[in-house]
This record gives sequence, C-alpha cells and structure tokens, in this order.
Amino acid sequence: MYKLTLTYFDFPGGRGEPARLAMTLAGIEFEDFRFPFADFNKIKEQTPLKQVPTLTVDGRQVTQNNAINRFVGKMAGLYPENDYQALLCDEIMDGIEAVTDKIVQTFGLSAEKQKLAREALVDGPLTQYLKWTQERLVEQGGEYFIESRMTIADLKVFVWIRSLNSGHLDHVPRTLVADIAPKLNEHMQRVAQTSAIAEYYSS
Amino acid sequence: MYKLTLTYFDFPGGRGEPARLAMTLAGIEFEDFRFPFADFNKIKEQTPLKQVPTLTVDGRQVTQNNAINRFVGKMAGLYPENDYQALLCDEIMDGIEAVTDKIVQTFGLSAEKQKLAREALVDGPLTQYLKWTQERLVEQGGEYFIESRMTIADLKVFVWIRSLNSGHLDHVPRTLVADIAPKLNEHMQRVAQTSAIAEYYSS
Repeated sequence: MYKLTLTYFDFPGGRGEPARLAMTLAGIEFEDFRFPFADFNKIKEQTPLKQVPTLTVDGRQVTQNNAINRFVGKMAGLYPENDYQALLCDEIMDGIEAVTDKIVQTFGLSAEKQKLAREALVDGPLTQYLKWTQERLVEQGGEYFIESRMTIADLKVFVWIRSLNSGHLDHVPRTLVADIAPKLNEHMQRVAQTSAIAEYYSS
Repeated sequence: MYKLTLTYFDFPGGRGEPARLAMTLAGIEFEDFRFPFADFNKIKEQTPLKQVPTLTVDGRQVTQNNAINRFVGKMAGLYPENDYQALLCDEIMDGIEAVTDKIVQTFGLSAEKQKLAREALVDGPLTQYLKWTQERLVEQGGEYFIESRMTIADLKVFVWIRSLNSGHLDHVPRTLVADIAPKLNEHMQRVAQTSAIAEYYSS
C-alpha cells in the first residue's frame, strides 16, 4: 500500500472532499492534512502549481483533483472496471469540474461584479449543467450514475449538490437544485444516508 | 468494436486533436467529423453541453475531452495499465487542460482586454505550467511523460506546445516555449517525428 497524504482546506466540501469520502468509505488509511483558509498563502508555496488539493503518494505530491479522485476511486473499488463505463464516470467528473471552475472564478470578484457573474451562472451554466447531470442520472436508472452502484462520480456530484444547497454561495438560490434538478437532491440524500458517509459527517 | 464519431472543428489542433492522433496512431477506425468554425453555432445545438469535441460511441454522444482522450487512449494502447502511472498520466492531461481553459477564456474578449489578459497569462500561468510540465518530463527521463513510451499524455502536451509555437495566439510570443521550457520543444519534435504522426500531418 502507498503512504498517502491529502492536503486540502479544512472544510467538508470542495475539490478535495470526494477523495476524502472515497478513502473513508473504503477504509483506506491516509493522512488527512487540513489547514485553515488563512494558511493557504503559506501552504500553496509548498505545492507544485500553487493549488490544492494535492495527494502525496509515497513522497510524490500529485496535483489535479479528478486525477486524484480517479486514483483513490480505483483503490476504493469505486471506479468502473469496464472502459466504456469508466468513460461515463469520467464524463460526469469532468463535467462537474468544468462548472465548479466557473464558480471558483467568481470568488475573487468585487461584490457588485460577483453578483452579476453569479446571476449569469445561475441562469446559464448552472442550470444547463444541473439539467445535464440529472439527465445522465435518469438515463442510468435514477439511483446512481454508473453501473447502478456507488462510484467516485456519485461522490463528486454529491459534494457539488451539497455546496449548491448550502446557501454559502451568495446569489445562488438555495432552491436552485430543487427547482431545476430535484432528482439530484434525491441522489444527494441517497449518498448521504450511506452508513459510512452518514457516520463521517456526524463525527 | 465500437462505432465511433469524433465531432470537432476542422483544424489540426485544439481539444479534439489528441483523440484524433491516438486513433490514427493505433489504426482505430472512426468517423472524423470536422466542421468549419462558422458552423459551430449550428453544431453546438446538437451536442449535450453546447461544446465540442464530442465522441459518439455506438450512438451515445459523450462530452469532456480528457474523458474521451482516456477512453481512446486505452483502446489505442496509449494509456498506462498501472494505476500509479495512470495517475501521473491523468495529472499531465488535466494540468494542460487547466491552462488551455485559461487561454480559451480570452478568445471572446475585445482587442484591448485580450492583450492584457494574454500578457498576464504569459507572465503567470503559461510560464508556470510550462515550467511544471518540463519538470515532469525531466523527472521521467526527458523522452516521454510516462513509462518512457508514447502515451496519450504526450499527445496532449504535443498539441499544446504546437499551438503555443504556432504564432496564432496574439500576444503569446512564438519563442515562449523555447525561452521557458526548451525540452518541451525537443519532446514536440520527438512526437512529430513518429512515423504515423509525420504521415498524418503530411497528408
């Protein structure tokens, strides 16, 4: 087994959370190195691209969150063996990453610009990607995204939907998911009720 | 075998080119559906996320270029079997995608804003990612990115470096790669001289 350290912000969401969840679900031992937002300027200087999350694998610090998700997903038995199913799993993960990136780009904006940018996201890409993601879920039977079982794609979507529902994103209505893609809320509940995940968030 | 159609702009670069190259290298039969830039507004309405490239696999149109690259990479024997090597391959592909996305975001800007944005990219992310990519190459022996052999990661980097060298990106000096990461130009030549790739571009 590898010696693993996941480096990410100390909050239960964002780009580092799916990998934490996958390793937790599978009981994979790893150092969960969490740091407060205030330390980011210091921490990022110790990373290859001034970004987190990183996964350090036997001393080698690796960047790119979906690359990390895929790697830990395989270790955790949460990634399809079949190449076509793996393609569909990757499509979901990269789709969510693309729309997440659009939100992240609004973080540094002034209040007025952020409001305009977020409203444009809500009307445009967020609605579009929510509909697309829900269609993909329905196409696969409505319970899970791939192979009717939990995979890393479900964890990626779960973290995204929780974030949209949280009310922490100003100008993104907490009812957006319920209004646009209610089946993604049902999916979010399904994942949340998985015993290892329920236990993780209650502890 | 799957019935495959790759849908992308009719030019020898961009997000669709690595998959074309991988399938060409491996002799995988596919419909290479190319359309002129002027048709994009029409074509995008026929895609799931109003984006290209898409890969249609037995009638199912799949989005997300690195998901597609990975899938055709596996079919083409251009993707690592080993999970840790696959992680390193994915890291390169997603890193190049991240910096490509920053360039794509400057396409729609006014002339003045584009100049400022491109100059900031050259001084910031482009230089940073070029250095990082070169370090990754050197770390792996300097010839190829993974396993000392051609993989889909090499094709992704190859297309990016060709684009930066082309002079088609206003305000990105054609000498940037030579100045910052000359070993990536040597790598680009190495890939270009692969016989199937040399033949593809000469035909």
